[in-house]
Amino acid sequence: MVERLCFLFVRRSVLVVALVVGCLGHAPAQTPDPLPSWNDGPTKKSIIDFVAHVAAPGSPDFVPASERIAAFDNDGTLWTEQPIYFQVAFALDRVRAMAPQNPEWQTTEPFKAVIDNDMRELAASGTKGLFEIIAASQAGLTPDEFAERVLDWLATARHPRFHRPYTDLVYEPMLELLSYLRANRFKTFIVSGGGSEFMRPWTEKVYGIPPEQVVGSSGGIKFETRADGHPVLINLPKIDFIDDGPGKPIGIERFIGRRPIFAFGNSDGDQQMLEWTAAGNGARFMGIVHHTDAAREYAYDRQSHVGKLDKALDEGIAKGWTIVDMKNDWKVIYPFEMK
Amino acid sequence: MVERLCFLFVRRSVLVVALVVGCLGHAPAQTPDPLPSWNDGPTKKSIIDFVAHVAAPGSPDFVPASERIAAFDNDGTLWTEQPIYFQVAFALDRVRAMAPQNPEWQTTEPFKAVIDNDMRELAASGTKGLFEIIAASQAGLTPDEFAERVLDWLATARHPRFHRPYTDLVYEPMLELLSYLRANRFKTFIVSGGGSEFMRPWTEKVYGIPPEQVVGSSGGIKFETRADGHPVLINLPKIDFIDDGPGKPIGIERFIGRRPIFAFGNSDGDQQMLEWTAAGNGARFMGIVHHTDAAREYAYDRQSHVGKLDKALDEGIAKGWTIVDMKNDWKVIYPFEMK
Repeated sequence: MVERLCFLFVRRSVLVVALVVGCLGHAPAQTPDPLPSWNDGPTKKSIIDFVAHVAAPGSPDFVPASERIAAFDNDGTLWTEQPIYFQVAFALDRVRAMAPQNPEWQTTEPFKAVIDNDMRELAASGTKGLFEIIAASQAGLTPDEFAERVLDWLATARHPRFHRPYTDLVYEPMLELLSYLRANRFKTFIVSGGGSEFMRPWTEKVYGIPPEQVVGSSGGIKFETRADGHPVLINLPKIDFIDDGPGKPIGIERFIGRRPIFAFGNSDGDQQMLEWTAAGNGARFMGIVHHTDAAREYAYDRQSHVGKLDKALDEGIAKGWTIVDMKNDWKVIYPFEMK
Repeated sequence: MVERLCFLFVRRSVLVVALVVGCLGHAPAQTPDPLPSWNDGPTKKSIIDFVAHVAAPGSPDFVPASERIAAFDNDGTLWTEQPIYFQVAFALDRVRAMAPQNPEWQTTEPFKAVIDNDMRELAASGTKGLFEIIAASQAGLTPDEFAERVLDWLATARHPRFHRPYTDLVYEPMLELLSYLRANRFKTFIVSGGGSEFMRPWTEKVYGIPPEQVVGSSGGIKFETRADGHPVLINLPKIDFIDDGPGKPIGIERFIGRRPIFAFGNSDGDQQMLEWTAAGNGARFMGIVHHTDAAREYAYDRQSHVGKLDKALDEGIAKGWTIVDMKNDWKVIYPFEMK
């Protein structure tokens, strides 16, 4: 009886509901700009056009939501990477803090250079030296302990130029882009040369990207059962996977298992990820952040030791990828400028 | 003007909408059983109680949706694994099909045993031999080409006992459980010793689990640029990561980056994943599928070469984990029984 009554009532109310929904939909006089920190122009238009094409049912470029995979580099793409990668700043601080417990470092490179604050000597140790320092910064800790160290450091360390926490130095226009993509049912991933254990403790809060959508370089881990029966994971002093250059498409395949339709990077380390994205079928978006703003952030490309952008810039220009001119395309750089 | 009219209309229609929604909600007289293929009893109750406790706001065991990570083994937990792991059946078929192009296999173990269909000799080659066969089944192919081979095989191969496609042999009660968890905003992952490249082509369709939520064993991959400039990934003839036993918590840490609050397995290869899940803070669910039904599926545990369940069964009983007695807890095994 109640069902029957309800049925009749529902039938008569369909028109009412339709009208209500129509009115609710009408309320904002026009759609707000989803990317307010981006200046109008071809860069912003290329993003909005792409999203409109792939997300609109009936569009010839329509892509089902489950395949809307967007991959973002982190350093220099979502946050600043100068004067040194922030994870390196963290690792240097960690090594200095741990030096008293590791007296052998006083005479062993690259650790001696770090303790002596001899950046020239440290640079001479090259990528290998850098990885040794990064590995040392996490070795012997459980992932939870390491996450705690990262969060403690982020709470207290300050960027040498901006005198702010490093997580303040994320790009407001990219935060808007991440939200815009997610509002259009993209799944946003980080695909970074940085360590996944370094990023995961804070990416959800800062970028809205949960740990399971962070692909990064990773160290060895071992599982062991402590004497009291408690199982633990322990970080080993070795790098297991480098998610940079050709490692990025490999990381994408291993961790995501689908080819992105949208990728954003800023350096030659992102070239293969952008090529891999471009080589798929259907509509594609490839973006490069070009750091052109020495006044508000940094200006660097072909000659930089950090975030060198040379071959990928040539390829991006030649192939018509979207090149963000930071100085001219972005109204603001950091969220704190808006307060 | 339109806005004003709408506003008035909306205000007057709130009651109507509330009534409509109330009626729609009323239509089914009571909440349908979310696990209809599970017999009532302590097993089913343990699942429903757990979900109710962690998903209800205000519950002392409440867990935010973003942390509701559920990890499922695949072979023997979501689908059948007898008489041999289905990926092994696939790899054996692949090796036989490729034998004419690999004449050296006629005289090299473990390939000779496969070609001669000498299962005793093959068993003698042990896990190492098995991995060689699995690696050979994917080496030299791009991930897309390999996915195509997997789907072609699944479309034509038949299980020796049930004479049905292997993907028909998924467990109906587990499909219901996956849906039930997702309806309660869990994120469901596969964490399997099987190859991720073998599972990802079909898990979304069969289980509703997208490729990026499939953690498995993986082979080496290389990135290269072909002469025409086209970038490709190529599977290498080596196993890179074995997601089994202690590899499971390591795989969880690497790929998911959070500890599950819910895990389901069926063999000693799942023991460390279950321990790792159990050792976290707050409410936890650990489940084991015990294969007790020789009539409808298979009955095996401590002595089985495939899916051996011995130590994990002892630990599960001792610690009060949920042990599914397939024969008594499941009304049906496979979806096709319901047609």
